[in-house]
Amino acid sequence: MTTPLLHSARERFSFDLQARDPHTRARAGIFRTPHGDVPTPAFMPVGTRGTVKGVLPRDLRAVGSTMILANTYHLHLRPGEFVVRALGGLHRFMGWDGPILTDSGGYQVFSIKEGTTIDDDGVSMRSVVDGANVRFTPESVIDIERKLGADVAMAFDHCPSNPTDERECASAVERTRRWLDRCVARHRTHGGEATDQALFGIVQGGVFEHLRRLSAETAVEHDLVGYAVGGVSVGEDREQMRAAIDIAAPLLPEDKPRYLMGVGMPEDFFDAIERGIDLFDCVTPTRHARNHNAFTAQGRVNLRNSAWREDPSPLDTTCDCTACTQFSRGTLRHLCQSNEMLAGMLLSLHNLRYFHRLMIDIRAAVFTGTFTELRERTLRSL
Amino acid sequence: MTTPLLHSARERFSFDLQARDPHTRARAGIFRTPHGDVPTPAFMPVGTRGTVKGVLPRDLRAVGSTMILANTYHLHLRPGEFVVRALGGLHRFMGWDGPILTDSGGYQVFSIKEGTTIDDDGVSMRSVVDGANVRFTPESVIDIERKLGADVAMAFDHCPSNPTDERECASAVERTRRWLDRCVARHRTHGGEATDQALFGIVQGGVFEHLRRLSAETAVEHDLVGYAVGGVSVGEDREQMRAAIDIAAPLLPEDKPRYLMGVGMPEDFFDAIERGIDLFDCVTPTRHARNHNAFTAQGRVNLRNSAWREDPSPLDTTCDCTACTQFSRGTLRHLCQSNEMLAGMLLSLHNLRYFHRLMIDIRAAVFTGTFTELRERTLRSL
Repeated sequence: MTTPLLHSARERFSFDLQARDPHTRARAGIFRTPHGDVPTPAFMPVGTRGTVKGVLPRDLRAVGSTMILANTYHLHLRPGEFVVRALGGLHRFMGWDGPILTDSGGYQVFSIKEGTTIDDDGVSMRSVVDGANVRFTPESVIDIERKLGADVAMAFDHCPSNPTDERECASAVERTRRWLDRCVARHRTHGGEATDQALFGIVQGGVFEHLRRLSAETAVEHDLVGYAVGGVSVGEDREQMRAAIDIAAPLLPEDKPRYLMGVGMPEDFFDAIERGIDLFDCVTPTRHARNHNAFTAQGRVNLRNSAWREDPSPLDTTCDCTACTQFSRGTLRHLCQSNEMLAGMLLSLHNLRYFHRLMIDIRAAVFTGTFTELRERTLRSL
Repeated sequence: MTTPLLHSARERFSFDLQARDPHTRARAGIFRTPHGDVPTPAFMPVGTRGTVKGVLPRDLRAVGSTMILANTYHLHLRPGEFVVRALGGLHRFMGWDGPILTDSGGYQVFSIKEGTTIDDDGVSMRSVVDGANVRFTPESVIDIERKLGADVAMAFDHCPSNPTDERECASAVERTRRWLDRCVARHRTHGGEATDQALFGIVQGGVFEHLRRLSAETAVEHDLVGYAVGGVSVGEDREQMRAAIDIAAPLLPEDKPRYLMGVGMPEDFFDAIERGIDLFDCVTPTRHARNHNAFTAQGRVNLRNSAWREDPSPLDTTCDCTACTQFSRGTLRHLCQSNEMLAGMLLSLHNLRYFHRLMIDIRAAVFTGTFTELRERTLRSL
């Protein structure tokens, strides 16, 4: 008998801090996973139901995606984690051999209010597919995520419905703490960190300093591979989001990746990265694309605008994506006006490229000590 | 002053007959155009409004498309031929540097009956975009097609609404003849054949031998670069379509490409190719794809079928497309069930690949004298 080829998570997952900005808490690193390396800061496109909408996996790679996100709640409902496993696991299912992270459904508990009830043991919800009752507990979520088989599983947390209600936030922090204990225990029964799946904990606490602090401190009691700041971009204002990150990020270990969940917009990236965040996810680039809105070096562009009708110039002269190198603004406008699939496909490629290039530029700026200049220049262009 | 670089159409466009099947009228050739060569028999994907729905031009090339079709009626309505011209012409507009053919709108006159009136001078129709009245004459259609700038412009013909009504067919044949005269004259004022745009004439005549014969004979009086058989696949049965091709095809010049408009299905290709047809177009592969139907070596597959729920095998084991090499039937079914864009995108790539591979196989069979065997084997698989 040979020794089983089990490495510790410290070998399968690691985070190498490579550079720090001298003026802010911005940092550059590499998050290593069993399916490849993720240079950080990084933006993860969202593949809710097993596909980043309108983008072939090969093209995701081409526009610079390194790690992508899929959604536990939606994949549990359809096709179901057993089907995904029977089809070879999430990587094969999605046709994506790079790193994947699954969220835990905590955000859906927040966003799908109708028919949702939360108790100390878990959550009862209605299926958005067929209206059936579905029950999630910290244990069942970890079981689902294990069967899906992403590189990173998020813990099941309680994201309060109102980030400015102190009593509700306190209760969510306490529940998130107890649920994290249960997630960690369950994760351990599946082999824990000595497997190809890492667990990330989530910090809640809304806009309240002492609750953010408490939530961060209890999360890091578990020595996890990474940590997320949750409960942001859920109704609070920009200043409050900055304050929440200001408190939470420094309490998270320096040598672990920090992930700001569900964020967001280019300006948010600068706010968060200069406060020490490494990872992001959001539907922004693809959803805006399907609504015919593009992010460009010259600012936001609504492609339905009649100004582009006969414009033979590219959407963004600085961009190297298929939409910008092969098509004119005039054609893109026509495709949008005609509601052609190609409009959403091309603009998704472009917006994702814009987001990834922004991260690449920010990362380079951290290395060269020019983060602040890049921030000022970029914010002026938005 | 140097001599202008004008070549005759005989140099810019040519059709080289390369092989003939010993048992049928099937033939293999190369149709040469200013934007590249089209090995025949060939299938042209349809890009109605300037895009083959759900397929990036680069991927069209990858699945084997050589020449594509765009629609004069739809592009005239939106964005308008002046806009297409301002954006660099149809090739640049579509992001496609290969050969393009524009139909003339004759099929829309047939298919959009409400609000359409036909007289000897032309056709008045309603815009499907905004309900406005639009007027088409042979001259205006040729002008529109010239501005669009495809390699091949189709003549404006009258496709009768009922291919089995002799009086109506006779009248359509006569009108098609007179309109072809006018199309040829107008085409000549734009430089005629000494330009980068060739004109194809169209044979009408419904199911009537003497009318098909008359229409073919009058069309070939004009020495055009190619000829089409129209008025098929418009309500007649398979036997009647075969009969119409049987009459018309042999009357068309051997050394010119013959194009069967709007057809169709794999079985139709064999019917037509063995009667001497070289070119086809149809929305079949992409429309079926968006309806989650696939053409495979094992027959037609409905991807919504629950039989594929946990099937990890490829859609078509013989196929080299992205859908078949990167995804399982199980994932494709899930994408269809979830109405994800990726379902239509992947199945369009697959169906187009199936159609193009079929043409490649037929072409090879003509060279090797095995057309009949290939036909029998393929018809059994459909």
